Amino acid sequence: MFNARLSEVQAAVQTALDEAVARQPEGPLRAPMHYALQGGKRLRAFLVLESAALFDLPQAQAMPAAAAVEALHAFSLVHDDMPCMDDDDLRRGQPTVHVKWDEATAVLTGDALQTLAFELCCDPILGAPERRIALVEALAKSTGAAGMCHGQALDIAAETASTPLTLEQIIALQAGKTGALISFSARAGAILAGADQTALRIYSDAVGLAFQIADDILDVTGDEAATGKRVGKDALAGKATFVSLLGLSGAQTRAAELIETATDVLSAYGDKAENLREAARFVISRRT
Amino acid sequence: MFNARLSEVQAAVQTALDEAVARQPEGPLRAPMHYALQGGKRLRAFLVLESAALFDLPQAQAMPAAAAVEALHAFSLVHDDMPCMDDDDLRRGQPTVHVKWDEATAVLTGDALQTLAFELCCDPILGAPERRIALVEALAKSTGAAGMCHGQALDIAAETASTPLTLEQIIALQAGKTGALISFSARAGAILAGADQTALRIYSDAVGLAFQIADDILDVTGDEAATGKRVGKDALAGKATFVSLLGLSGAQTRAAELIETATDVLSAYGDKAENLREAARFVISRRT
Repeated sequence: MFNARLSEVQAAVQTALDEAVARQPEGPLRAPMHYALQGGKRLRAFLVLESAALFDLPQAQAMPAAAAVEALHAFSLVHDDMPCMDDDDLRRGQPTVHVKWDEATAVLTGDALQTLAFELCCDPILGAPERRIALVEALAKSTGAAGMCHGQALDIAAETASTPLTLEQIIALQAGKTGALISFSARAGAILAGADQTALRIYSDAVGLAFQIADDILDVTGDEAATGKRVGKDALAGKATFVSLLGLSGAQTRAAELIETATDVLSAYGDKAENLREAARFVISRRT
Repeated sequence: MFNARLSEVQAAVQTALDEAVARQPEGPLRAPMHYALQGGKRLRAFLVLESAALFDLPQAQAMPAAAAVEALHAFSLVHDDMPCMDDDDLRRGQPTVHVKWDEATAVLTGDALQTLAFELCCDPILGAPERRIALVEALAKSTGAAGMCHGQALDIAAETASTPLTLEQIIALQAGKTGALISFSARAGAILAGADQTALRIYSDAVGLAFQIADDILDVTGDEAATGKRVGKDALAGKATFVSLLGLSGAQTRAAELIETATDVLSAYGDKAENLREAARFVISRRT
């Protein structure tokens, strides 16, 4: 059920993203943008569309927001993979943009993908101008110096710090690096509906943290062929992770508790929230 | 008169930018963002505020849009200066961000400055949600794969091309690289007022092209101490420029013709457009 729905979302959001790139004028950035937007779990898009469904917003109405969050996620991956950042040569099983093209192309492709995300939030199909500007504002707050870029900067700083991070510091780091955009995604439906975001905020804070813990677990237990990225990198680099701080079993327990919090808080939405509950469970059971 | 007004704008937009950065949470990106936002001619901010004045919008109302366009411009400079792009160590007379910090910080600082620009466009003081979302959309179209990033990618591609660019190709390149954001700036007032943008579009297309021609002229005739950046770089690199294609005198004539077009097209706005006419003249008379 969940997997079928996720596949459906993957196909629909891929179409929306491909169309968005095709609408850009021809030029040197179209091919690397298109390339960087292929594949991925599309968990963020799923959260956008399912949170929209909570408020009876049709999928077609929320789709530009789902595409926007995936464009923004892709932008962060293209820049994060660069040699001066995480220096990854493999992403989703394919050469990263700076490997396939070059570093300048990676900088500009990431830049243009961020822009594309904000452009997608302007699509009139999303609703009234006040809803769209609220979406833009929430996306900006989740992205910049108060969101994802902030978390990424903390991550880079941690790599050159003399002592490993504490649990509290890692939680703050992940809240920015992956949590902010997951939070935006899960709240997007409420934003578009002009509804209260409290339950979805609690849900997404828990899911976001569990997601990062699961990532750290996968870095230890994962299979490179399945994840499509290098594993064991964090341990090799001597980085503090949830696994190094809590132990493997402690990390697994913590993630499970968070998922319980996330599923419980959506009870007021009844059956409509079942796909979001499934998504929360998926986050800690995934193999990639 | 014009210089006094420009100084006034410089001070006011600097305050707005410093306040915008101060509103971000503490973290590793605040200092480099603040640093990258110092100085500059603030010509783009000037165009925003003066185009707003054409429609009787008070300066305080248009200020977030003026700050946004300067944040966006600063983002482009931080990324353009990186070693994989134009590789500049000096900007506005100071070490560039990747020299003063490192490349990862430059990537993330530029990213966060782009985000800040879109966040600033959400400020309620700018007007009704429909005006603000129109501003966001226009800014996105001027920035991404149809605007500035596109022009920059053409510029990078030109550097490795086997033959120098033709005049037509250089005009297309500059229309993206510097023209798109100048066009946005000059149209911002009309966007915020919900007014027709035709005259301001013609004005800004001419000013944008003249601006780039003047840049190429300065690269030949400029003084490093005055411009605060390296001169003679383009000639050294064998790059086709407006000067190499039209000759110094031909480039000066072309720029002067464009400024005449720009000043003539604003005649319908009468005295209210005098500062915009002065700005057009400033673009080709500037020494930095």
